[in-house]
Amino acid sequence: MIKNEVAVVGVGCTKFGDRYERSFEELICDAAFEAYADAGIEPDEIEAAYLGTYLPGPGGGKAAVSLADALRLYDRPITRVENYCATGTDAFRNGCLAIASGVYDIVLVLGAEKLKDRGGRGLPRLGHPLLARGNTAPGLFALAANRYMHTFGLGRETLAKVAVKNHRNGARNEKAHLRMEVSEEQVLKAPIIAWPFGLLDCCPTTDGAAAAIICRASLAKRFRKPAVLVKGAGLAVSTGRPYFDPTFDYLGFRSTQAAARQAYTMAGVAPRDVDFAEVHDCFTWTEISNVEDLGFCRKGEGGRLVEEGRTALEGDIPVNPSGGLKSFGHPIGASGVRMIYECVTQLRGEAGARQVKDAELGLAHNVGGPGAVACVIVLGRS
Amino acid sequence: MIKNEVAVVGVGCTKFGDRYERSFEELICDAAFEAYADAGIEPDEIEAAYLGTYLPGPGGGKAAVSLADALRLYDRPITRVENYCATGTDAFRNGCLAIASGVYDIVLVLGAEKLKDRGGRGLPRLGHPLLARGNTAPGLFALAANRYMHTFGLGRETLAKVAVKNHRNGARNEKAHLRMEVSEEQVLKAPIIAWPFGLLDCCPTTDGAAAAIICRASLAKRFRKPAVLVKGAGLAVSTGRPYFDPTFDYLGFRSTQAAARQAYTMAGVAPRDVDFAEVHDCFTWTEISNVEDLGFCRKGEGGRLVEEGRTALEGDIPVNPSGGLKSFGHPIGASGVRMIYECVTQLRGEAGARQVKDAELGLAHNVGGPGAVACVIVLGRS
Repeated sequence: MIKNEVAVVGVGCTKFGDRYERSFEELICDAAFEAYADAGIEPDEIEAAYLGTYLPGPGGGKAAVSLADALRLYDRPITRVENYCATGTDAFRNGCLAIASGVYDIVLVLGAEKLKDRGGRGLPRLGHPLLARGNTAPGLFALAANRYMHTFGLGRETLAKVAVKNHRNGARNEKAHLRMEVSEEQVLKAPIIAWPFGLLDCCPTTDGAAAAIICRASLAKRFRKPAVLVKGAGLAVSTGRPYFDPTFDYLGFRSTQAAARQAYTMAGVAPRDVDFAEVHDCFTWTEISNVEDLGFCRKGEGGRLVEEGRTALEGDIPVNPSGGLKSFGHPIGASGVRMIYECVTQLRGEAGARQVKDAELGLAHNVGGPGAVACVIVLGRS
Repeated sequence: MIKNEVAVVGVGCTKFGDRYERSFEELICDAAFEAYADAGIEPDEIEAAYLGTYLPGPGGGKAAVSLADALRLYDRPITRVENYCATGTDAFRNGCLAIASGVYDIVLVLGAEKLKDRGGRGLPRLGHPLLARGNTAPGLFALAANRYMHTFGLGRETLAKVAVKNHRNGARNEKAHLRMEVSEEQVLKAPIIAWPFGLLDCCPTTDGAAAAIICRASLAKRFRKPAVLVKGAGLAVSTGRPYFDPTFDYLGFRSTQAAARQAYTMAGVAPRDVDFAEVHDCFTWTEISNVEDLGFCRKGEGGRLVEEGRTALEGDIPVNPSGGLKSFGHPIGASGVRMIYECVTQLRGEAGARQVKDAELGLAHNVGGPGAVACVIVLGRS
């Protein structure tokens, strides 16, 4: 079983952003060696690894061997996991299963992605069948956002407040991609990408990597810092074409609801027990809908949560203290592991200017597809 | 732990070949529903799934949701695994870890690949950095084959005997892609692809899918047929560019050796305990070298093994009773799971005209990269 039997003992994360100066392999090294130092572990102690990366290498397959070559992790098992924008959290989940199986004691989970300098072969080639027909990610999420805003009477001002909050958090985070505060007016006046999303409602295109070293909980004491325990993990794939599904109400994602249910059940906790969360905010609306699907409030109340400041750093359920995808950036395969990095940093009380008070239980959540797949990880202080 | 705690209770496999008439999703259904019927299980009992597929969808990511949509397996975890030509066996290995973790009781492992009708976006775009510079898979394996043949004094006649043997087995297998016997003369006279490989030294380009249903061994009794137990599983990634590694001797693959060591250690068996093996034979030479790296004979003796008929169906260590990649075909992500299908079929005594006598312990082995990664699974009768 995973609950309380898997511990995170080291985390690392590169600066996110335009990382033209660092290759895919160099970003992997930067994240991994920070995690090695954080744990106080020798690289050779890693028994197995999982690499979460979304975009394939030229033609389709370079991932597991890329990690091996970058880190000189030879002659041991390395598996590449890919699961849309939930790639990073699912890689982490599979690392936890591998530890819980009893086969491996110490596992490295690494998420990495280069989106900025792929010679034009990056985002424009993204693979959803709808995207291939001219629908972009902003366009697809906007369909749901419009229906949601109509149904619950939300304006763009509420969406903008998510951007303001997350940029405020990200500005305090030296590793964030877009380290600037933005005003509600700036968000509202930014060029429209796909109504209701303006440029500042959208997360940026980012390079980055993040790493987590996990081990059997009974071994956690030997590492440098207090361990953080994995409490629950859930993954749910719903249809890959939710917009063609006649039961889809355009008000939220069943995949998030199902993954959260799995994770809460495993952890034996309720949403109200969660002290803070890293929530997938590829667009401002996505955070509003996801906090509902995660159970932090009822459907339709997510807007009020941000308006009342309850999801702010000082609120009762801080959401995206890191800055979120919105400000921290979203290198697809890296994002989920970067969320684990943030949860662990917060639970250790090491988050500095963006520290959540009395953080004892944190949650990381990715959604991809859009809406096709979601992964939820619950982490707690020992 | 995996050993004796994970059981295979159902397997399915499509006809391999030019499957222009069946889509990726339809091949998934064909394999899965055969496995459901084989196990006597309702589809809804599947708690989690792993999909092994190598080539990405258009742009990079369609896999986990493709499986969900094809099989209507909604609201549960599905992970796509990719690991070069070891994709299928590694998906199976991760399914075993998921069962062994105690989190899931019943897991579906599915390998699927369409190589034939990808509108030119299939094999020519294969992703190894060497391939991108004009080296093809036959060309790369040929470098090692030539060095090996020089070192150990082998001729093309010995390589041809592998093709003759595997086509003889495959001709007895109604699901094989190339169901024809070939003579040594035919193999030797076939057009040269990359010396020493002629056309009939190379496995074909194939579509297909295969499935395995695995469960906690203690639950295996409720299914239709006697369970087959997973005894060992190993995965090893060596450098992605072995041909640039100055310690590479061009005589065999370190990844196979390391993966085999892991699997034998877990199973508590020695190579001599293995009754038959499905061995990666993308080229005739690959089988000869791999049987050595798997420990069935000493380095340099693999040619004699086939010359003396010891790897034939009636030999003391039958290799590729299915027909192997050579005759059965090689839809990349499907191959490993297809090997599990063959091992289970043999261990149950259901292999008909290609049945290995007294098969109690079988082994499945994939290598990819070339030589960059290998996966070994050991399976035994209850």
